[in-house]
Amino acid sequence: MNENRVVCFLSDYGYEDDFAGTCRGVIASLAPHVRVIDVTHGLARHDVLGAAFVLRNTMRYMPGRAVHLAVVDPGVGGPRRAVVLHSGEDRFFVGPDNGLLVLAAEADGGIAGAWNITNDELFLRPLSATFHGRDIFAPAAASLATGLPPAQVGPEIDPATLVRVTLPATEATPQGLRAAAVLIDRFGNVALNLDADQLEQAGLGDPIEVVCAGERYLARVARSFIEVRPSDIMVLLDSYGQVALAVNTGSAEDVLSLEPGDMVELRRLPEQPS
Amino acid sequence: MNENRVVCFLSDYGYEDDFAGTCRGVIASLAPHVRVIDVTHGLARHDVLGAAFVLRNTMRYMPGRAVHLAVVDPGVGGPRRAVVLHSGEDRFFVGPDNGLLVLAAEADGGIAGAWNITNDELFLRPLSATFHGRDIFAPAAASLATGLPPAQVGPEIDPATLVRVTLPATEATPQGLRAAAVLIDRFGNVALNLDADQLEQAGLGDPIEVVCAGERYLARVARSFIEVRPSDIMVLLDSYGQVALAVNTGSAEDVLSLEPGDMVELRRLPEQPS
Amino acid sequence: MNENRVVCFLSDYGYEDDFAGTCRGVIASLAPHVRVIDVTHGLARHDVLGAAFVLRNTMRYMPGRAVHLAVVDPGVGGPRRAVVLHSGEDRFFVGPDNGLLVLAAEADGGIAGAWNITNDELFLRPLSATFHGRDIFAPAAASLATGLPPAQVGPEIDPATLVRVTLPATEATPQGLRAAAVLIDRFGNVALNLDADQLEQAGLGDPIEVVCAGERYLARVARSFIEVRPSDIMVLLDSYGQVALAVNTGSAEDVLSLEPGDMVELRRLPEQPS
Repeated sequence: MNENRVVCFLSDYGYEDDFAGTCRGVIASLAPHVRVIDVTHGLARHDVLGAAFVLRNTMRYMPGRAVHLAVVDPGVGGPRRAVVLHSGEDRFFVGPDNGLLVLAAEADGGIAGAWNITNDELFLRPLSATFHGRDIFAPAAASLATGLPPAQVGPEIDPATLVRVTLPATEATPQGLRAAAVLIDRFGNVALNLDADQLEQAGLGDPIEVVCAGERYLARVARSFIEVRPSDIMVLLDSYGQVALAVNTGSAEDVLSLEPGDMVELRRLPEQPS
Repeated sequence: MNENRVVCFLSDYGYEDDFAGTCRGVIASLAPHVRVIDVTHGLARHDVLGAAFVLRNTMRYMPGRAVHLAVVDPGVGGPRRAVVLHSGEDRFFVGPDNGLLVLAAEADGGIAGAWNITNDELFLRPLSATFHGRDIFAPAAASLATGLPPAQVGPEIDPATLVRVTLPATEATPQGLRAAAVLIDRFGNVALNLDADQLEQAGLGDPIEVVCAGERYLARVARSFIEVRPSDIMVLLDSYGQVALAVNTGSAEDVLSLEPGDMVELRRLPEQPS
Repeated sequence: MNENRVVCFLSDYGYEDDFAGTCRGVIASLAPHVRVIDVTHGLARHDVLGAAFVLRNTMRYMPGRAVHLAVVDPGVGGPRRAVVLHSGEDRFFVGPDNGLLVLAAEADGGIAGAWNITNDELFLRPLSATFHGRDIFAPAAASLATGLPPAQVGPEIDPATLVRVTLPATEATPQGLRAAAVLIDRFGNVALNLDADQLEQAGLGDPIEVVCAGERYLARVARSFIEVRPSDIMVLLDSYGQVALAVNTGSAEDVLSLEPGDMVELRRLPEQPS
């Protein structure tokens, strides 16, 4: 009976080089019967914030009890820790301690346990200074997928000591809401750190005024692109339940000049004389 | 005994985001023992015509009895139907009713049955307005792969009502043939809606005059790039049996300024005095 | 008991088209229980030299006894042979006889046997002139993975007749070492044909003078990016044990204007007055 967990693998390794493929080879070598699902390896280089949201968003569409191997690791070779988190819903998260994993684990029943990967019997030799995905994270994920108890990767650590992604809080303003851009996809759709309930409670109406870096835009509230005209700016609920800015047949990233981490204000329009 | 069908998955989701990976996760969640083969996710965004040809061309290289999940879906969220087609050679095709699937099913023994996917017990919840690949098509493909009878996805529909890709007909001209560009690969090779028999019957000789948007070019008939000089324009039979235009160490797309759907005329040259 | 070998698949087919996916379909059709690991399909188009190094570097991270299917094949359709190599460590290598495979096989216990793939009962029909990955190499790899003795692909050939990648030799100079750039990754890191032992024996100290095309640069010796300042040029040991040039938060390829095959000199600095 195969009790193996699936490994769901997400990184910013890209597709031009062998990095992701080599990690797949390491997992297949150590755990021949473990299935690997590539979530994506096209994440923006070193964008820990965006990757943390992708991991949180996609996690629940993956098989239950998965081991989530996530590598966006600008601090590789430095003092940042390598960690395993175990969530209340029995998922494992393996990766660098830079904020990448915490958002997902907290959304999955909370952090039930956290360990520092220090057991060098798990590491590949020679251990490189720059490719811990291959030498540390992939072997740890393969081992957990085949049943290694997490306490064997290294000492348990206090979840309160984990690095978190810092994000300006979503907050009410006199005319509406202010929220951060957290994730931009390849079509230039910009997801905000804001969900449907928060938007609805603010009662902003339709259209909504969107303010980015002092510039003001008018946006339609829509469910999908087919409801608006080409080039219209839209406020919509994206497929992961996040409020997002989009431009029909265009790019909200470009039109609104937004980058991950930028603040956006959504404002109620004044009553119009009818 | 594993009677599962393989799922062959083709889309324009690209590789930067999680879209294709999330669909893989959905299939693995619903049908853990079903194998997924990624045909490609790099198809030109919203190019239904090109995707229909890629699906038709590649289908016969995939395992028999496969479920072909194909998602190029500019009309997502609108009134276009979600459909399952069953071919005479026992393949299933799952995707939007926008012409993407019909060409392949007709080339695979004809359309033996067609159903509208309306059974919302199959859908993921919450159902998004913009990501039906994840919420409708992937679950339907996973279910068919594990043996769900297609009639359980929803009501049977008349194949005559399916949307088809419209393509100007390939036709004889006084001096040769006129055909549409249907598929351009990343090297700028341009496949025409024309097969080897049609070309041979036209008896165009070698070289051939190629006319695109009023401009005239001279092209060599060749079997492969090594037969011609750098920068030569070539008429060749591509690896899927389609007549294609290519430029050695260059791009026919660029040299001839072609886009999918453009018409190209191939003309017999006048007899040269010898 | 599954005695199948894993197929590890590496090519320059890219991700936009179906080429790699179609080969995966062929393998799954011929050998349904064989696992395929995609090493990468993003290698630089027609860069046989770089691909040969990627194959050699990644090979040992793949499962043992694998069949390595490698396709970077600018001479497809011409007289170049299709070959299978068997290494002393019991790996198979399948691909064109253009130098792509030899470096890896020699690093894996040497070439224990070599065969010319001529048995057209293995080929897909119709055999194309331009897509031997699909029609010849993938079928041969699938057959070897399921146990076909290599002698059945065609006649044994003398390894001395195999095409080799030609590379200017790494050599000592009065002031240090001269070596060739062999592999550039998507971050612009430039691997040299030089290993740690060779560098150490040359005793170049730190910093090192790097000379490319007559231009002189100063480079720090470092283990990882976090040891140096932004924009610093570094000489480091990359994760595959090769000496590489890198620029922190930049591209050594761009800063040093390097291409694969270019020669680089590493020079000892004169003693500084203290």
